[in-house]
Amino acid sequence: MSQAPATSLQDIVAHAKEYGFVFPSSEIYDGLQAVYDYGQNGVELKNNLKNIWWKAMTQLNDNRSGGPIVGIDAAIFMHPLTWKASGHVDGFNDPMIDNKDSKKRYRADQLLEGKAEQYVADGQPGKAQELLNEMGRLLGNNELEAVRELIIAEGIKCPISGTSNWTEVRQFNLMFSTQVGSVAEDSNQIYLRPETAQGIFVNFLNVQKSGRMKIPFGIAQIGKAFRNEIVARQFTFRMREFEQMEMQFFVRPGTEMEWYEKWRDTRLKFHQAVGLPAEKLKFHIHEKLAHYANAAVDIEYQFPFGFREIEGIHSRTDFDLKNHQELSKKKQQYFDNDLDENGKPFGNYIPYVVETSVGADRLFLAVFCNAYTKEIVGEGDAQKERTVLKLHPALAPFKAAIFPLVKKDGLPEKAEEIVKALRGEFRVFYEERDAIGKRYTRQDLIGTPFCIAVDYQTLEDDTVTIRHRDSMEQERVHISELKAKIGYAVSEQRILELI
Amino acid sequence: MSQAPATSLQDIVAHAKEYGFVFPSSEIYDGLQAVYDYGQNGVELKNNLKNIWWKAMTQLNDNRSGGPIVGIDAAIFMHPLTWKASGHVDGFNDPMIDNKDSKKRYRADQLLEGKAEQYVADGQPGKAQELLNEMGRLLGNNELEAVRELIIAEGIKCPISGTSNWTEVRQFNLMFSTQVGSVAEDSNQIYLRPETAQGIFVNFLNVQKSGRMKIPFGIAQIGKAFRNEIVARQFTFRMREFEQMEMQFFVRPGTEMEWYEKWRDTRLKFHQAVGLPAEKLKFHIHEKLAHYANAAVDIEYQFPFGFREIEGIHSRTDFDLKNHQELSKKKQQYFDNDLDENGKPFGNYIPYVVETSVGADRLFLAVFCNAYTKEIVGEGDAQKERTVLKLHPALAPFKAAIFPLVKKDGLPEKAEEIVKALRGEFRVFYEERDAIGKRYTRQDLIGTPFCIAVDYQTLEDDTVTIRHRDSMEQERVHISELKAKIGYAVSEQRILELI
Repeated sequence: MSQAPATSLQDIVAHAKEYGFVFPSSEIYDGLQAVYDYGQNGVELKNNLKNIWWKAMTQLNDNRSGGPIVGIDAAIFMHPLTWKASGHVDGFNDPMIDNKDSKKRYRADQLLEGKAEQYVADGQPGKAQELLNEMGRLLGNNELEAVRELIIAEGIKCPISGTSNWTEVRQFNLMFSTQVGSVAEDSNQIYLRPETAQGIFVNFLNVQKSGRMKIPFGIAQIGKAFRNEIVARQFTFRMREFEQMEMQFFVRPGTEMEWYEKWRDTRLKFHQAVGLPAEKLKFHIHEKLAHYANAAVDIEYQFPFGFREIEGIHSRTDFDLKNHQELSKKKQQYFDNDLDENGKPFGNYIPYVVETSVGADRLFLAVFCNAYTKEIVGEGDAQKERTVLKLHPALAPFKAAIFPLVKKDGLPEKAEEIVKALRGEFRVFYEERDAIGKRYTRQDLIGTPFCIAVDYQTLEDDTVTIRHRDSMEQERVHISELKAKIGYAVSEQRILELI
Repeated sequence: MSQAPATSLQDIVAHAKEYGFVFPSSEIYDGLQAVYDYGQNGVELKNNLKNIWWKAMTQLNDNRSGGPIVGIDAAIFMHPLTWKASGHVDGFNDPMIDNKDSKKRYRADQLLEGKAEQYVADGQPGKAQELLNEMGRLLGNNELEAVRELIIAEGIKCPISGTSNWTEVRQFNLMFSTQVGSVAEDSNQIYLRPETAQGIFVNFLNVQKSGRMKIPFGIAQIGKAFRNEIVARQFTFRMREFEQMEMQFFVRPGTEMEWYEKWRDTRLKFHQAVGLPAEKLKFHIHEKLAHYANAAVDIEYQFPFGFREIEGIHSRTDFDLKNHQELSKKKQQYFDNDLDENGKPFGNYIPYVVETSVGADRLFLAVFCNAYTKEIVGEGDAQKERTVLKLHPALAPFKAAIFPLVKKDGLPEKAEEIVKALRGEFRVFYEERDAIGKRYTRQDLIGTPFCIAVDYQTLEDDTVTIRHRDSMEQERVHISELKAKIGYAVSEQRILELI
């Protein structure tokens, strides 16, 4: 094969829409900014990823393995004090600034970062670093007027109006709020959760006690979270409504670094197991740590727009449980009756936490970008370009497509027997319209790993051809072999075994 | 066995909390009214139900079957015009009234219905019917002052204050709203969706075109919806945040009644297949139809608090698509090239819709109530009461528990081999603490169908005992048989085959 043609994010966005993976939300009303819907193929790919993550967490980590993990599904609505304890009410802000002439709004930090990038491009990396340090200091101290002055001093202009006519810098809380209860006097302002982690923390003792869990153990959760992002972009990478797959692993204080390292390595293996190549993944170690963390690393994937975070692994100490204990006045302690080196029980403590947090939509986008392939196939005059989604077979929306060669002579009925035999096991697609080559092409575009063709010979000897998506090779097999042959290739177990 | 002791909703709520199925939300902050979290066992049961529903829809109904179904996952946030088109902005209200002395709020319709029930109890069913008719007429015409007068005329008093000192009746919209965008001038009020169906309607053409779907076909979706209920009660039956499993089936106008009947019957079979007994299920046909429906039936389950809806099947006509077409100015038509009796294509039309809509939390609660069993076991002096969750094995949080008889002599290590061999296939539990009888009891309480005991004989001949949850009988089997024996019993296929 010749070299693959280049692909861009635009190609990927267009393909996602045209083939039923991702649609803009409420498109008939011209969309809702930074919100997307998963289409008929996207939802299957996303569900497959979610199921594999869930099983990798709650099924592979049993309570003989020295670190069992169980799941929960906490509501999006939580008591508002939760977000006081977590620090989101007071600290979950973005600094924003408006240009008075264009009326456009920007994030003040992003304007300064853009300027720093320009310094780097101009061969002045020292100046860039100096600017970023100063910005970090001012924002850290919430000196917003000084941030504005810095923007003006650096000569940063609005790209629309071209002026430096800036408003003051204001902090903007990213949580969405709503009113629960029927009228003003007895209603409460509550928030849409900006992260799923707190649903795990407030249930720590419920799960530990009702499940008789011994530390170390983990609690896993998949669910929606919401952030009122000022600037949202890069397709589904940063959305106002998004889905997280988070796991909080509760450990004895002092043991957190070994678990942090274990989870960092295990999580990297996961991303490779679902098909992301090692050379497109890297660790990004946080040098500046969040207030709650004593170690943090991101796993980044090389998107068409650069290396970006798909998962964070954070050693969160006892920050969250301690704050919940203070605010709720409910002890968040665990009694550890394992013995220390002096033969005494470790006793009561607030556990430390190692968190693994995947953006489900980001993982989806990474897997989708990675699978999207344009390639030259065939030789000489028969050379042509094809587009194919090279998804891991266990992730594909349909596992097999079944095609009668023609729409007569009993071939559709024969094909239907196969459909019925397989559809109890995995999702299959049936199609009888158009030339078979066209039908293969359509399955390539949505990533179906196997196409099964039923022809006249099938009527005689019960054999069919299997056409393989990636190699485009065909082989003749007996119908009775299909279930086992395809079943294993498309099974989640094949991925789980690698983790 | 003797007769089973009676069980109440209170028993069920307590069991759900104590054994990790359902916790009150944000309990450490004293909870959030009408919101609940699923615990470590509840989330597994709920996910199993959701997966089976999803497969029953999107896997069993392929495109050879004459009515394929595909899924989507639309965002909770939608363009606000969606809810104008659907009628929710103008009409999704409850009439409420306050008592000025007690400051308590009531739903005006529920006060009048309570009075009607009292007439029935007093042997005056005619008067009851008259009152309900009058109420229906007044609410239908939005004559709220007359509703208030009717409440006073009927002598209805607040049960707290005992007075008739009522405020005016006001309509209260049940949708939660929030602001998207960063400040007042460019922000929009949007709603948290009160139903998932509209996410399907606005994507109808996206799915139909990108999936080359031919009518009839369906679109299925599982997701959260939100309603600011004035009066929420009966545990997870009516919550402010809840989950729906909806399927909209698009058909040619004029054929909707046959599909309505097909889906009504298929959906009843589903509920029986997950284990709800036929005698606890019934149809409730709607005599008064919603404005968008030309036929509607509920499937009701007999909860401890009476027969209540768990699923609705509605023939919704073209109400939704037509309204979206009008408001969005985007044609919501389908070109049907099948031929009518005159040999001409049916041509362009807005499809009719048959909807099946399950409350996922209600199905969970029905299955949980049904499985919750107190029974007398044993004979004579050994008689005792046990509590056991008789869940379908495919729905159980753990499929098998593995117990070494004692915590020494290599039995835990032998048990670990079995854990490792099985956990790739299904969720297993391991426990070595306490007497084995106690361990069986704990698994009964969370519904684990199989307990596997590893004893000294296992070390000699690789056999173990399987203890069956419902019969409590034990059998001796070879380790090599476990995967197949348990694997089939706990497989989703066993349920899917029944639908």
